[in-house]
Amino acid sequence: MIQNLHSDPDILRVGHLLADAARTAILPHFRKPDLLADNKFQIGYDPVTEADRAAERAMRKILERERPHDAILGEEYGSTEGTSELTWVLDPIDGTRGFVSGTPTWGVLIALSDANGPFFGIIDQPYIRERFLGYGERAEVKGPSGTYALQTRSPRPLAQATVFTTFPEVGSAHEGAAFAKVSQHARLTRFGMDCYAYALVASGQVDLVIEASLQPYDIQAPIAVVQAAGGIVTDWDGGPAHNGGRAIAAANREIHAEALEFLKNCPV
Amino acid sequence: MIQNLHSDPDILRVGHLLADAARTAILPHFRKPDLLADNKFQIGYDPVTEADRAAERAMRKILERERPHDAILGEEYGSTEGTSELTWVLDPIDGTRGFVSGTPTWGVLIALSDANGPFFGIIDQPYIRERFLGYGERAEVKGPSGTYALQTRSPRPLAQATVFTTFPEVGSAHEGAAFAKVSQHARLTRFGMDCYAYALVASGQVDLVIEASLQPYDIQAPIAVVQAAGGIVTDWDGGPAHNGGRAIAAANREIHAEALEFLKNCPV
Repeated sequence: MIQNLHSDPDILRVGHLLADAARTAILPHFRKPDLLADNKFQIGYDPVTEADRAAERAMRKILERERPHDAILGEEYGSTEGTSELTWVLDPIDGTRGFVSGTPTWGVLIALSDANGPFFGIIDQPYIRERFLGYGERAEVKGPSGTYALQTRSPRPLAQATVFTTFPEVGSAHEGAAFAKVSQHARLTRFGMDCYAYALVASGQVDLVIEASLQPYDIQAPIAVVQAAGGIVTDWDGGPAHNGGRAIAAANREIHAEALEFLKNCPV
Repeated sequence: MIQNLHSDPDILRVGHLLADAARTAILPHFRKPDLLADNKFQIGYDPVTEADRAAERAMRKILERERPHDAILGEEYGSTEGTSELTWVLDPIDGTRGFVSGTPTWGVLIALSDANGPFFGIIDQPYIRERFLGYGERAEVKGPSGTYALQTRSPRPLAQATVFTTFPEVGSAHEGAAFAKVSQHARLTRFGMDCYAYALVASGQVDLVIEASLQPYDIQAPIAVVQAAGGIVTDWDGGPAHNGGRAIAAANREIHAEALEFLKNCPV
């Protein structure tokens, strides 16, 4: 049963349906021209909220039809119970600050989880038409340059590594200080990429993503994509990260262990 | 003569040829898989340097053939004199930290300048297949969602504005402090977008980009694109920015003036 779950063509089919529907719902709202001068739209139109809700509604409609026994946890519309012990975890727009700025680094996050956490994940970037997928043995990206297998980086010391983060925008002072220690020992730190940073770990481009203050729907799809590509995602003490809070995504066990030395036992 | 220069189809044709050639030269080097484990490539292969040089060589070859009388200023190969009083200003990869991290926010910068500064500019993002162009009356983007006119945002107070910057990665302590004052008064500050941030000002998505320590080839194409879209680009004292150093790109004169209050007369 567990084996089948991790290579079920119906899950793959429905996952792509969901991501396709989210793209269609969101793109008309992305980079809308400046509407402040137009009275029709001045009051009450918030492109990211409209897009967020429209995308989650579109995905829920597909799940009701195609997977009526599965539960749903969505950022916008909360929890819907199921009977299959599986839960679709949906974040229609991860990275709203990027979205409202027009940057192409926000994403649609779709995961499927059982009691052990997510085992299927999609990180989709609708504007670029780029989809990162992790499912069991399968890890791939389909984008403007074609379809390629995803494989995380081979081990290298932290001193040669690239770290992504949403600090200083998230986290407590203690968490910020712990992150800063990792950053000081790394070769390069980059900011502000939202969920796209996890896709870059899965793509073998960077070594670490370190974040805090996450919701389950922020991290479940990244966990599945990074792990399918050979990486590891945990909380800052090496435990499961799929319930949210603090997370570290690492290209391999070696750099994960090196970074965890600076992060573990961090006060709240 | 000046009028013709600002609507010369040959300049447009050659600009696109240059950007096409740079795309072709760079993309094979972008997101190369992890090569550290492969001895063939371990020594001496630096993807960003290889791509930078290959792209500038390809662009120079086109200019030698198509525009032999124009001068060239390039990041990688320096200055080549001309006899036309026009200079092509080339930065084959602006945003090398983004490039080596796999993010799609670096760009190819191509400008054409006379004694008054740049009047033609392209910001090209090869991976997304997205090209922002500013030339005289013409300001447009051609990308995955089609071709659209560029138009900067209408005026709004700094308190409602979005600011992009490469601080804290660039600039002196004084410059950083001046930038921080603008940032503190803005609604949203975003980091790490390289030249793509100027494209977002031209696209009407954000209000300001503020940078320091620029080279002429970093800023000339952004100046032409932002100005053609209705924006304004100066140094921090309101003077010309095309020789590099400090720059502010603003969606309109009102927000430019408001931000300049915090930036002007900044010590080195």
